[in-house]
Amino acid sequence: MTFSRDTAGVYAIAPTPFHPDGAVDYPSLDRLIDFYGEVGVDGLTVLGQLGEAPKLDQSEALEIATRVIKRASFPIVVGVSSPGFAAMRSLSDAVMDLGAAGVMIAPPNTLRTDDQIVGYYAGATDAIGKDTPFVLQDYPLTFTVQMSNSVIARIANDNPGCLMLKHEDWPGLEKITALRALEADGAMPRLSILTGNGGLFLDFEMERGADGAMTGYCFPDMLVEVVQLSREGDRDAAHDLFDAHLPLIRYEQQPGAGLAVRKYVLQQRGILDSDAQRKPAGSLSGAARREVDYLVRRLASKDGRARIA
Amino acid sequence: MTFSRDTAGVYAIAPTPFHPDGAVDYPSLDRLIDFYGEVGVDGLTVLGQLGEAPKLDQSEALEIATRVIKRASFPIVVGVSSPGFAAMRSLSDAVMDLGAAGVMIAPPNTLRTDDQIVGYYAGATDAIGKDTPFVLQDYPLTFTVQMSNSVIARIANDNPGCLMLKHEDWPGLEKITALRALEADGAMPRLSILTGNGGLFLDFEMERGADGAMTGYCFPDMLVEVVQLSREGDRDAAHDLFDAHLPLIRYEQQPGAGLAVRKYVLQQRGILDSDAQRKPAGSLSGAARREVDYLVRRLASKDGRARIA
Amino acid sequence: MTFSRDTAGVYAIAPTPFHPDGAVDYPSLDRLIDFYGEVGVDGLTVLGQLGEAPKLDQSEALEIATRVIKRASFPIVVGVSSPGFAAMRSLSDAVMDLGAAGVMIAPPNTLRTDDQIVGYYAGATDAIGKDTPFVLQDYPLTFTVQMSNSVIARIANDNPGCLMLKHEDWPGLEKITALRALEADGAMPRLSILTGNGGLFLDFEMERGADGAMTGYCFPDMLVEVVQLSREGDRDAAHDLFDAHLPLIRYEQQPGAGLAVRKYVLQQRGILDSDAQRKPAGSLSGAARREVDYLVRRLASKDGRARIA
Amino acid sequence: MTFSRDTAGVYAIAPTPFHPDGAVDYPSLDRLIDFYGEVGVDGLTVLGQLGEAPKLDQSEALEIATRVIKRASFPIVVGVSSPGFAAMRSLSDAVMDLGAAGVMIAPPNTLRTDDQIVGYYAGATDAIGKDTPFVLQDYPLTFTVQMSNSVIARIANDNPGCLMLKHEDWPGLEKITALRALEADGAMPRLSILTGNGGLFLDFEMERGADGAMTGYCFPDMLVEVVQLSREGDRDAAHDLFDAHLPLIRYEQQPGAGLAVRKYVLQQRGILDSDAQRKPAGSLSGAARREVDYLVRRLASKDGRARIA
Repeated sequence: MTFSRDTAGVYAIAPTPFHPDGAVDYPSLDRLIDFYGEVGVDGLTVLGQLGEAPKLDQSEALEIATRVIKRASFPIVVGVSSPGFAAMRSLSDAVMDLGAAGVMIAPPNTLRTDDQIVGYYAGATDAIGKDTPFVLQDYPLTFTVQMSNSVIARIANDNPGCLMLKHEDWPGLEKITALRALEADGAMPRLSILTGNGGLFLDFEMERGADGAMTGYCFPDMLVEVVQLSREGDRDAAHDLFDAHLPLIRYEQQPGAGLAVRKYVLQQRGILDSDAQRKPAGSLSGAARREVDYLVRRLASKDGRARIA
Repeated sequence: MTFSRDTAGVYAIAPTPFHPDGAVDYPSLDRLIDFYGEVGVDGLTVLGQLGEAPKLDQSEALEIATRVIKRASFPIVVGVSSPGFAAMRSLSDAVMDLGAAGVMIAPPNTLRTDDQIVGYYAGATDAIGKDTPFVLQDYPLTFTVQMSNSVIARIANDNPGCLMLKHEDWPGLEKITALRALEADGAMPRLSILTGNGGLFLDFEMERGADGAMTGYCFPDMLVEVVQLSREGDRDAAHDLFDAHLPLIRYEQQPGAGLAVRKYVLQQRGILDSDAQRKPAGSLSGAARREVDYLVRRLASKDGRARIA
Repeated sequence: MTFSRDTAGVYAIAPTPFHPDGAVDYPSLDRLIDFYGEVGVDGLTVLGQLGEAPKLDQSEALEIATRVIKRASFPIVVGVSSPGFAAMRSLSDAVMDLGAAGVMIAPPNTLRTDDQIVGYYAGATDAIGKDTPFVLQDYPLTFTVQMSNSVIARIANDNPGCLMLKHEDWPGLEKITALRALEADGAMPRLSILTGNGGLFLDFEMERGADGAMTGYCFPDMLVEVVQLSREGDRDAAHDLFDAHLPLIRYEQQPGAGLAVRKYVLQQRGILDSDAQRKPAGSLSGAARREVDYLVRRLASKDGRARIA
Repeated sequence: MTFSRDTAGVYAIAPTPFHPDGAVDYPSLDRLIDFYGEVGVDGLTVLGQLGEAPKLDQSEALEIATRVIKRASFPIVVGVSSPGFAAMRSLSDAVMDLGAAGVMIAPPNTLRTDDQIVGYYAGATDAIGKDTPFVLQDYPLTFTVQMSNSVIARIANDNPGCLMLKHEDWPGLEKITALRALEADGAMPRLSILTGNGGLFLDFEMERGADGAMTGYCFPDMLVEVVQLSREGDRDAAHDLFDAHLPLIRYEQQPGAGLAVRKYVLQQRGILDSDAQRKPAGSLSGAARREVDYLVRRLASKDGRARIA
């Protein structure tokens, strides 16, 4: 199971389930994987930023990756971002041996100039091996690294393993249009573009040329359906479904707070036993929980999948 | 005409209209002021970040403030943020003499520690005079200055002119709750809290204790109505109206791109002659204009005010 | 009086003298200009960051520039950095009419990608006119904008008025070598490279290919002599003189505190009446003044110009 | 072997020796430890930022710590900074069991407000245990976290294990004075203050109240002697020795480039077999090596320890 430059659909971003005491909750992880299969995702990404990867130690990271790869019936991408190339290489080698479809690499937040960014990904390719498929994560809001279109083109040209872009620049619609134009001009090879940002612009991102979504919204079933409707050209239907979810998408996309919302809803949906995060952790106040409950109830009147209380 | 610690309602943020050649467009400015009066705003803020204030020279800034203060029948707040206190003092003195209700002060993006922020506002009060009412602008995404609740309390305690908070932290719902609790405990004087961020969380901000909105969304009429419904306790109606606008609010709130959307819609509504920005400027691609048109058309089916094509 | 791509020597950065009440101190300014003439600088830059330019209003800035240009017998560069191109154009036009040799432009701290930086300087050239000579200021520590060698080459190629680089990247020695190599390869036109950073690396910067210094160290006479010795190939003598000053250079180069040291020593040298800064201002504690006195006394045993107490 | 609130002297920061192929060079590490013992350091810190700790995997980090603790006859501090508390706890527990004197904790670069910083160190104490001695690292230039004096006081008050401050704010002299005043007022418990920043201000830091240095300058023997002279009150002698080294200190303190200089000189001194860094790595150009050689030769005429060619 692998991905390619033409991969389309939804790759969910999996949170890492924890028990309230901070231990990894493997039964919940199993349920989560099965749930993603049932709702029809095309792939899954684990150990990303919202998977709380930096809070895991190496043995935990590897155990989680192993478990997910074994259980899932779809391709698994594993986040291997690391301050040093030695740790990146060892984690990447290990998960590729286990059967991962590829890895995802975010830039360290010290990079500034175009040359620094391009140079970093050359080093990363050196570390993971040039045949290992990787996802380039472009997420300036969190990583403070801004990749221009020409930098993405240079990275795609220089590194044969760069097959997919996790697009979460903000604003980012023009970027999709510009990258597709660069591809059409032969200035860069095609990339599969899956969009993030919690899905906040998925409706228009699809229309600009994205292939799908790679994000962790707590109703991945909606993502799957919006992507499908959009790919079939049913514009109004895609927007209708998307708009019904937008109040909750917007609420979940708050920086820092978002993961707590996501885990809380997945708990309400019966998939996670707990919404606990490992420390240092965000959490949801009582008022925030009631707001999420209210949003889910309002959503339920438009989308039956939200009837979860 | 002034504002107080108890001011409630909507203070619109006015964009500055320009002709395509970069000159200030005063006839459009007049129409804009009249428009805000007609839709029932409670006040207006000019020369803020989204009013392109840093691109004006001092004489232009003063001329715009003069014109708006003379024409409007509601209180005017004037942005006087400046790297140095000398320029802040001269602009503040001038607009207060002209009849402004008060001024708004954003923190320079070099401030980091609590003491630095508190010290800066002490200097600002020195500059504008301790009896001049001012709005404290808390907008970390743009200014990169993070004010904790206790910093806001210290500023409110130290500076008698600090009457209002332009709240646009993100996430920011818990901040409203916390500030209202500090007030209830007597730890700080009451502030009028008007929220910004393009209105993206106005629905819940009102429920958390905000007094209203201070933002520039291109349908200020909606802001006025949502604030009113929420203050009357008509929760579902407030959310229904808000949710109808959310797809466009979300689109308009994109950093950098947002002002172009706002000016474009105000032009479509017949208020501005041009959606031009002064350089360095953002602009809207053809694809983006068509997306905005589509969003407005969809909105029109739910809110008649959007039937503007 | 003008400068060119081949200009060599020392352009001092002038502080702006203030009275303790914050008013501009013009008699001290006159003395300062005369002093720079006496020590043999080749030019002078006013209204830069360390000239407290952002704290002046436009009329003050213009008055200072006028006074300096009229009085000086050497070329004057005027800082015209501004958030908007309108203010940049009006100040640049005014000072060029008055007889300035050129202007200096620092990048706004919102720029990140190579294309953003290059685009900004294209806009600046539009604003000041393509025949106006300008100095490109590359100072990442203060402006947080990192210009790679290729970005500087693009700016130099695109903008015929870009004749000089104020080099203050840190570390920056390799950058000088790389830029000279790009020039030798024909990849960019020659720039006059004058170095800043308070002179902290002037000894080696000269050896790497710099043409001189543009900085505000409180003994510009030393800068003049070190540059001359270095250009004459008297390496050890240049280092000996430089090393004698290094303890004080290092002390003066502290971010934020440095300007206070500089003004204090210039006051001790009898040039400024006061070491006051305009608010928001740094200042020197009693302990710090005693440390500077100690450093100057130690310096005096090696360089007679420092016998100023 | 441990440290306390009254510890004085020099704690060297050890680089991690690598072979050119990136493997840890243990024989060089052994020589390095012995060298520190011979020059009379009072302690040693390993696995800090300049020890390239983020580029090691957990097993390597542990092996290095084990080796150093076993071999050294002085207290060892181990850097345990980590994005998550789980990894911090496991490394801290392991090295304390092995006999480390304590750990060092730098703040993650996402912290901004005073409360966030204070809260983070509360979490860290939870993770490492309240009886584990720790060094608070205050290094804004690298970590972008600015700790005001009151924040340091709060951390020292809240966390009984916080015994020592690695002071490398810049400028930082007033901070030492202010912290000692807070201690004298009873507003915070005494901290051992050892200064960093490559030693660039060690001369005056000692006079302001620092207890010594914790830094990695390539002549730790000089640090030991300057600290001793300063503690004995021999001011001029301390400055004379310091000033002789300042040209090289200044050169070594360049961000990014500094570690390459340090390793190169330690190699020239016969302690390291190679000056290799692990990727992503800086390196020294031929021109830079020649500059360092020149500086060392000039130093050798004043300090015999520098006769190493």
